[in-house]
Amino acid sequence: MKEQIVEALKWRYAVQVFDSAKKVSEKDLNTILESGRLAPSSYGFEPWKFIVVENPELRLKLREAAYGQAKVSEAAQLIVLAWRTDGRQNIIRERIERTTKTYGVGAEALKDFQDMMQGSIDRQTDDALAADMKAQTYIALGIMMETASLLGIDNAPMGGFDAARVDEILGLKEKNLSAAVFLTLGYHGQDMAAERPKVRRPFSEVVEFIK
Amino acid sequence: MKEQIVEALKWRYAVQVFDSAKKVSEKDLNTILESGRLAPSSYGFEPWKFIVVENPELRLKLREAAYGQAKVSEAAQLIVLAWRTDGRQNIIRERIERTTKTYGVGAEALKDFQDMMQGSIDRQTDDALAADMKAQTYIALGIMMETASLLGIDNAPMGGFDAARVDEILGLKEKNLSAAVFLTLGYHGQDMAAERPKVRRPFSEVVEFIK
Repeated sequence: MKEQIVEALKWRYAVQVFDSAKKVSEKDLNTILESGRLAPSSYGFEPWKFIVVENPELRLKLREAAYGQAKVSEAAQLIVLAWRTDGRQNIIRERIERTTKTYGVGAEALKDFQDMMQGSIDRQTDDALAADMKAQTYIALGIMMETASLLGIDNAPMGGFDAARVDEILGLKEKNLSAAVFLTLGYHGQDMAAERPKVRRPFSEVVEFIK
Repeated sequence: MKEQIVEALKWRYAVQVFDSAKKVSEKDLNTILESGRLAPSSYGFEPWKFIVVENPELRLKLREAAYGQAKVSEAAQLIVLAWRTDGRQNIIRERIERTTKTYGVGAEALKDFQDMMQGSIDRQTDDALAADMKAQTYIALGIMMETASLLGIDNAPMGGFDAARVDEILGLKEKNLSAAVFLTLGYHGQDMAAERPKVRRPFSEVVEFIK
C-alpha cells in the first residue's frame, strides 16, 4: 500500500489537455465524491458542496468564466467545490441537528460542544470566517485528488476563474454557496505536460524534524 | 481499491485520546510526509513546511499553546503544517528556480509562466494572499490524512491553538513561516469517540449533479 500511494501521487500531474472522448465511470466518480463527503473538517462543519456540472452549455459558460481554459469543458467531469457563505447563520445549528440525529441524543447533551463552536465562530471577523470556510474545501480537494490518483484517473485542480461569475452561472449565491476551486477529472490527451518530470522541493527542504 | 479507500475514510475519525505508548513506524511516518510533499498546490508554489516535533519539552509547550489539549503531547507524532508568509517576496523566484533546474531550461523559457504567477500574486491583497497560502496547506493535510488512514494509522487534525505562540515556540517567524494546522498521528487509546457513529451529511445533500 505504501508504494502504491507514493506511486499514485508521483504519477499524478496537473493535466493541461484532456481527451474529451474518454469518460470516467460512474463508479469511479462516485468513489471520488464519496471520498470528499467523508473528508474531515473543522468542528465537522462540512462547509461545502460538490457540484458536478455535466450540462455541456453550462460547461461552456464556466469555461468563459475561467478565462477560456479548455479543460473546463473538455475534461470528462468537472466538479465545482463550493464553500458555505452562511457559516455564521446556519452551520452550527445544522451540525447540532445531524449530530443529535446520528447519536440519538438531545441537543442539551451537546451544549458544551455547541458553546465551543459558537465561541470559535464569534471570535472570527467575517473575512476570516469566509477564508476559513473556503480553506476547508481544500481538505476535501486533497482527498478527492488522492483518491482519483489511486484509481488511475487524471485530475487537475483549477483556481483561475472569476468566482462571482461562476456563482452567477450556477446560481450559487441563493444557495449560500460560492465557488472555491474546480476539480477536473478524466484521462489526458496529447499533453506535453504529461512527459515533464515532477517539480517538487526535496524531502529535506519540505520536512524538518525537531528532535 | 475503491472499497479500500472508502473503508479507510469511514474508519478514520477525529481521535480524542491517543495511546502514548504506541509509536508510528519510521516507514509509515515517511510515507505520510512524502504524500504531503507530493501534494499539488496553486501554481506549484508548495507554500508550506511540515515540522515534525519529536522533542518532548517542545511538545509540552505546544500543548499549552493549544489550550492544554493532551493530544499534542500524547500522540505518537505531531506534525505542524506551516504556511509561507513570504509569498509576495520569494515564492515565485523559488518556483522558477526549481523548475529550470528540474526541466534543464533557462528562466527565459518560463517568462510567460512567471508573468502569470506575478499577475496572480499582484492582484491579491496581503490578507487574501496570506489566506490563500494558508489554505493551500489544507490540500497537503487532506492528502496526509487519507494516506495515514489507508495505512491504518489514527490521525486527527487540530486547529485550536494560538498560532502566534506556536510560531514563537518553534521560531517560525524568522523562517517566514506560520503555523496553519496540527496533524496528530498514532494509535488511539481508550477513546469513547472511537465507538461513535460517523456524523456526515448524506451523499444527496453534499453532492449535486447538474445534468
